[in-house]
Amino acid sequence: MTYRYQQLEKWILQGIRDQRWPPGERLPSIRELCEYKQLSKATVMHALQRLEAQGILEARPKSGYYVTHPANTPSVSSRIAPPRPVTVSDLLLDIMQRSAAFDLLPMLNAGDLPVAMVSLNRCIGRALRRQKGSAHQYYDQPAGDAELRKQLALHAARRGWSTGRDQLCITSGCQHALFLALMACCEPGDVIAVEAPGFYGVLQLLQQLGLKAVEVPTTIDSGMDPEALEQVLTKWKVRACVLSPAFSTPSGALMPEQSRRRILELASRHDMAVIEDDIYADTGFTETPPPIKALDTEERVILCSSFSKSLSRDLRLGWISGARWHERIQHLKLVTQLASSRYLQQGVAEFMADGGYASHLRRQRSVLSARRDQLMRELSRWPHVQSFSRPAGGLASWVEFSPDVDVLAMYHQALKQGVVLTPGPLFSVSGQYRNCLRISFAHPWDEKRLEALAKVPQLIRHAKAGPIL
Amino acid sequence: MTYRYQQLEKWILQGIRDQRWPPGERLPSIRELCEYKQLSKATVMHALQRLEAQGILEARPKSGYYVTHPANTPSVSSRIAPPRPVTVSDLLLDIMQRSAAFDLLPMLNAGDLPVAMVSLNRCIGRALRRQKGSAHQYYDQPAGDAELRKQLALHAARRGWSTGRDQLCITSGCQHALFLALMACCEPGDVIAVEAPGFYGVLQLLQQLGLKAVEVPTTIDSGMDPEALEQVLTKWKVRACVLSPAFSTPSGALMPEQSRRRILELASRHDMAVIEDDIYADTGFTETPPPIKALDTEERVILCSSFSKSLSRDLRLGWISGARWHERIQHLKLVTQLASSRYLQQGVAEFMADGGYASHLRRQRSVLSARRDQLMRELSRWPHVQSFSRPAGGLASWVEFSPDVDVLAMYHQALKQGVVLTPGPLFSVSGQYRNCLRISFAHPWDEKRLEALAKVPQLIRHAKAGPIL
Repeated sequence: MTYRYQQLEKWILQGIRDQRWPPGERLPSIRELCEYKQLSKATVMHALQRLEAQGILEARPKSGYYVTHPANTPSVSSRIAPPRPVTVSDLLLDIMQRSAAFDLLPMLNAGDLPVAMVSLNRCIGRALRRQKGSAHQYYDQPAGDAELRKQLALHAARRGWSTGRDQLCITSGCQHALFLALMACCEPGDVIAVEAPGFYGVLQLLQQLGLKAVEVPTTIDSGMDPEALEQVLTKWKVRACVLSPAFSTPSGALMPEQSRRRILELASRHDMAVIEDDIYADTGFTETPPPIKALDTEERVILCSSFSKSLSRDLRLGWISGARWHERIQHLKLVTQLASSRYLQQGVAEFMADGGYASHLRRQRSVLSARRDQLMRELSRWPHVQSFSRPAGGLASWVEFSPDVDVLAMYHQALKQGVVLTPGPLFSVSGQYRNCLRISFAHPWDEKRLEALAKVPQLIRHAKAGPIL
Repeated sequence: MTYRYQQLEKWILQGIRDQRWPPGERLPSIRELCEYKQLSKATVMHALQRLEAQGILEARPKSGYYVTHPANTPSVSSRIAPPRPVTVSDLLLDIMQRSAAFDLLPMLNAGDLPVAMVSLNRCIGRALRRQKGSAHQYYDQPAGDAELRKQLALHAARRGWSTGRDQLCITSGCQHALFLALMACCEPGDVIAVEAPGFYGVLQLLQQLGLKAVEVPTTIDSGMDPEALEQVLTKWKVRACVLSPAFSTPSGALMPEQSRRRILELASRHDMAVIEDDIYADTGFTETPPPIKALDTEERVILCSSFSKSLSRDLRLGWISGARWHERIQHLKLVTQLASSRYLQQGVAEFMADGGYASHLRRQRSVLSARRDQLMRELSRWPHVQSFSRPAGGLASWVEFSPDVDVLAMYHQALKQGVVLTPGPLFSVSGQYRNCLRISFAHPWDEKRLEALAKVPQLIRHAKAGPIL
């Protein structure tokens, strides 16, 4: 299904590509477009504003909409749209809720459980059997189990981040940690800088908390661009910046140390909180890099993480280190959920203390790296690909097709064939990335998954050949 | 520690009791009080406003503060204070966070686990061992495990509430459900009607969400007074009413069917949401009464509950039935926490399907009823008690002492002796109930607990004899 504004958007884009309106040219007026295409003013405005947000058009007061310079070489500044309330369209919401959790195929529940999960489950089982007396009649302390926090602090120290158990609070996963972080340091209406492309879960949180997003461009190998962030901070008062410096989704970029230091300098100068989504750090193929939090001398970096990407999504255990907001965060956890399961935390703490987590990570690193290599070989044979990321960690690659490939059309076509794709526009609030896909290598390339992958090139060709209004 | 405004409050109360200012009399002016007691204007105002909130004083514009009619026979209307933002004092916050989870004694982790917990833990262990393939690499659906929701719907049917699994969403406990309910149907600044005395977890939620509380008086045997609620609704636009009709904390009151129907009529007439905290329902000594939700024909009752009071506080599993807000609630759960543990839900579902939960409740009902009886015998021998509740379910009784017993002083004195009390002011936003205590019978009356209980009469005598400024 295509909305009228989307049809108009496509038509204008095609006209720009065909040089009907070359760079610098004024577009027909809103009234002219309404009459010519038989559309309402609201529909025409909607399409023009979306193109403006993508940096393709530029509004000049009392004059009209002009074509900016070619979309393939925009300067960073022309790509930054002003802060806006987040409104996730129903279509994208539907994709997020029903399919974004899957990659290529719906869940299959067969085969053997990995050895790490077997020993983790044994630890959890032992913790359950160790329950005595009326311990189950008491809530755990809001900060979480002290032994688990100790193990997490030890794990942090091994990657160059020196922290203590008192600086950690256990949460129900990383999304819960991000929620607590935003709730603690922002007020409705505040402007939050986010990565573009960036994690859709953050965008939905901003929407629910009434926060505005300003999208900061990232590159597929080094993450958020500090120069672009600086331009944003010069223009707008930004309360917090959410970023994922280690193997961020969708591209798997790893932010270099120089950029990290630069971002902390900017945060200090503009009194901005930094919310670090650290969830992919332990998926690094050679090591777990240190977090930005390790460089934080001003108590302004809130680190959020969980076991979901590195061990199990079904544990629902994460953690947060809340810097100057830590006490408020712990209180918010208490108020919104009281506590986490004590037995579960004890089981995971035992698994870590036994070395189970560290040896799991050692095995996992080479497994993931091999899965990435196999995906890279496939991607290099796909048609109409302009670029794709080759991450050193994480669980996915970001593929950019030529601008006329429409991945939303492709998504629907793929679903009919039982293949689940993750379309680019999920990763933005401004409808960008209609020619991009995230492709995951989180799962083994078994026969069924390879079959699904083999269907994609034909889907790309079809999406490119699709009718343009 | 007593603050200056509290000292002044006590002094004025004493003067009222001594008939220095009889009912209808004007109090000295603010300036006079400042000079006479050598206090700042802010301190004097603070004390006067607190006494006004308690219905002891009445402010008449351009005239001053007047003593209302005697506090022991107030009409309902004089006891209702206007809606106010909730500010929990640091002292109460501290009590809530550190001690309110305990009753009489800190946690003891010894002795045998109850038989129901052993079989529940076996079910959870089996669910862990049944995990296959890469199921742990997928988040559960936001609504929660279908089999657990089916078991909850069957349990609901047995108590006269006909519901379906699609109307239930699994949460991380009842507090999490209450949070989702308030987040879904209210906006900051909205007025929420709450029980007085009522659950402090709700008051803290209102504070964090920027909601205003209006306290509706309850009675110790039948809960929220519908007549008082009607007066409130006539005066103020109330967005939602949070109430716990079955064995509410602190008194254990059970709301009669007539009051339930009356409250639903009022909700309908004033377009108000009803948030039903159902957490104690399964602790009923003879049966689990039906919820108000069973009478809801307009999709305006949100039911919140969990296993914390009836089975285990460490499971962190609750549920919500969100009426017309259900879809939004499910989305909020997704956005703030993604999902709940699938294996855990499967384990609990198996425990319920095996009949383990039903037989646990059967045993538990008579155990709790005997524990209540033993507490009642003790309470009837305590000094300076004016009344106490004799609930037919729940885990506590509400004890009201003569007005000159100060339970906050008693709380501090008790802590020094290793006894943990739950003081009355925890259950109100207006500093009421300084002469009330909640006493729990959640735990077995073992020797240590009986020893702690035996210390209370002396503590009461001491708190009554305490110096009054």
